[in-house]
Amino acid sequence: MSLSKKSALNESEGQRPSTGVNANIAKKIRASRKKEVSVEKLFEELINGNKSALSRAITLIESTNPAVQEKGELLIEKCLPHANRSIRIGITGVPGVGKSTFIEAFGGFLADSGKKVAVLAVDPTSTVSRGSILGDKTRMETLVSHENAFIRPSPSGDSLGGVAKKTRETIILCEAAGFDTLLIETVGVGQSETTVHSMTDFFLLLKLAGAGDELQGIKRGIMEMADAIVINKADGENLKPAQKARAEFRRALHLYPAKDSGWQPKVLLCSALEKTGITEVWNLISEYKKSLKESGEFDSKRHQQNKFWMLQTIEEHLKSRFYNHPEIKKLLPAQLEALDKNETTPFQAADFLLKKYRSL
Amino acid sequence: MSLSKKSALNESEGQRPSTGVNANIAKKIRASRKKEVSVEKLFEELINGNKSALSRAITLIESTNPAVQEKGELLIEKCLPHANRSIRIGITGVPGVGKSTFIEAFGGFLADSGKKVAVLAVDPTSTVSRGSILGDKTRMETLVSHENAFIRPSPSGDSLGGVAKKTRETIILCEAAGFDTLLIETVGVGQSETTVHSMTDFFLLLKLAGAGDELQGIKRGIMEMADAIVINKADGENLKPAQKARAEFRRALHLYPAKDSGWQPKVLLCSALEKTGITEVWNLISEYKKSLKESGEFDSKRHQQNKFWMLQTIEEHLKSRFYNHPEIKKLLPAQLEALDKNETTPFQAADFLLKKYRSL
Repeated sequence: MSLSKKSALNESEGQRPSTGVNANIAKKIRASRKKEVSVEKLFEELINGNKSALSRAITLIESTNPAVQEKGELLIEKCLPHANRSIRIGITGVPGVGKSTFIEAFGGFLADSGKKVAVLAVDPTSTVSRGSILGDKTRMETLVSHENAFIRPSPSGDSLGGVAKKTRETIILCEAAGFDTLLIETVGVGQSETTVHSMTDFFLLLKLAGAGDELQGIKRGIMEMADAIVINKADGENLKPAQKARAEFRRALHLYPAKDSGWQPKVLLCSALEKTGITEVWNLISEYKKSLKESGEFDSKRHQQNKFWMLQTIEEHLKSRFYNHPEIKKLLPAQLEALDKNETTPFQAADFLLKKYRSL
Repeated sequence: MSLSKKSALNESEGQRPSTGVNANIAKKIRASRKKEVSVEKLFEELINGNKSALSRAITLIESTNPAVQEKGELLIEKCLPHANRSIRIGITGVPGVGKSTFIEAFGGFLADSGKKVAVLAVDPTSTVSRGSILGDKTRMETLVSHENAFIRPSPSGDSLGGVAKKTRETIILCEAAGFDTLLIETVGVGQSETTVHSMTDFFLLLKLAGAGDELQGIKRGIMEMADAIVINKADGENLKPAQKARAEFRRALHLYPAKDSGWQPKVLLCSALEKTGITEVWNLISEYKKSLKESGEFDSKRHQQNKFWMLQTIEEHLKSRFYNHPEIKKLLPAQLEALDKNETTPFQAADFLLKKYRSL
């Protein structure tokens, strides 16, 4: 109980319920106090940088049990004032580009130089496999055992939205636990790049040089999100093609307008295997952070992201209530069919469904 | 009354209200019948390709008067079975690129070769100026007087959504009036390119060659939407730079993955002034249409667009009801402020507002 005394939430500990109080209420109060006490304890450990506490905290927010989730919410609230002091780096690239090797090399370099590095992942396909990326920690065996590093596989979830919410909350927990450099990997399925892009400060696209297929498998729009393109495996016989690819990407990026923040995306080479170019990637990110901090764009971008996530959550909820309403589920197919047959316009069909919905 | 007899809607014309009927109801029936008759007349003229009727029909759907709008809805319903037989071409480009001259030359070429060409515009800024593009028809003086052409400035509206709805309905009216080639110009403000892209079959980006500034002023994402980039003013001293720009754009487009439809965007040169390259643009669009018609992608894309517009309309409405609710308007600012101060998470803030909304 000594730890709990430190918390403002336990001010009233000395007050015992009077004997006249309903037994059920007393029980509830005790349960709620117990919850606060256990959350408080976890929080104290977490804030002191205890990795095992961080793991347990993440498990709380990943739980599907409402009572446990409630504890998670409490914990997040406590962590909020301690969060937000980090750089959040999103990393994407097609399978085979060497994401794990890159993160192992890059994360190792950062951890060695004193940074506290947390590696997270967003993988909406992990529901079944429970973490198809980062799940196999042996892929990052040096980093996983580094005292300055923390690695957590993707949360599972039945929707990207659910996975994204848990990841964003995990970011808060990691930051409260003192992790100052967050690497958030995405497997690039569905909208997962967009999702990671909208929760990170810097978005890094890993590429490979190759015979004309530099961009194969990259979805439309990803190039435009990148703050840097890093061409991996720029070693041995690959070096020349990588240099050529760098020139091509530079030309291509030059064709894009500058980002809202004024940042002009850069193209770098690296070899995660030979550990060359790694320092340069970090220098670039530092330069980015410095420049955007000075202009105020760094904080402004985070505020925008927070706002985006709030509005997005609201709108997803409104939509899901509409489309999951039994009456709408019954009526929608006929409207879609009429639309396909040009028997109605999109606006008439929408109007019809909305009127029904409002009358329910 | 002879025209109205042709309509299935007037089947019951011979039945007069019995004398025992409430006078108000009788009045309403007469008013409704009158409405049907006048809409029927307008429809008959429109379907026969009468341009003045088409103009009046568009004025109906652009009206803000609910009674007139209702007539517009009726007319749209009648036109639906006659719509959908056309190619819808979206045209965008920064000011100064020569959009009007291009449309004059391109539309003139099509009208001369027997196409029936309707030129529309989407300009969300036109609310005040009542058509800042295409408003000045003298800019297309040859085309405007061509018997095969119909030009209509952007509808006004207080939102892009409103302008877009009217434009989509105008497309139906134009097609029912026999126009088989629709050119839909966008001024490129806000999201207007995305809007036009989502209502057209083919999206054409007009560009200029210039000293390194080929892409200035083009917003992110527009390049990726283009089915063709046409470099205008490729004449005289501009020809060489235009050829160089063509090579650059080809390289850049090559870096993008192919579109969902399998179409690989092309780059062409033209001079709207000297009327060179115009045939080639049309040939390209014809090739596109043929290829996508054969694969079924053409119709499938239109169905997708219809569905998109229906869902979009529904979702915009749900959002607008939420955000315009007096209670939400009152509570939202405090949540945003708490978010900016990191006193709450986006999910907690959203939850709070949604719970309030549901309890209202």
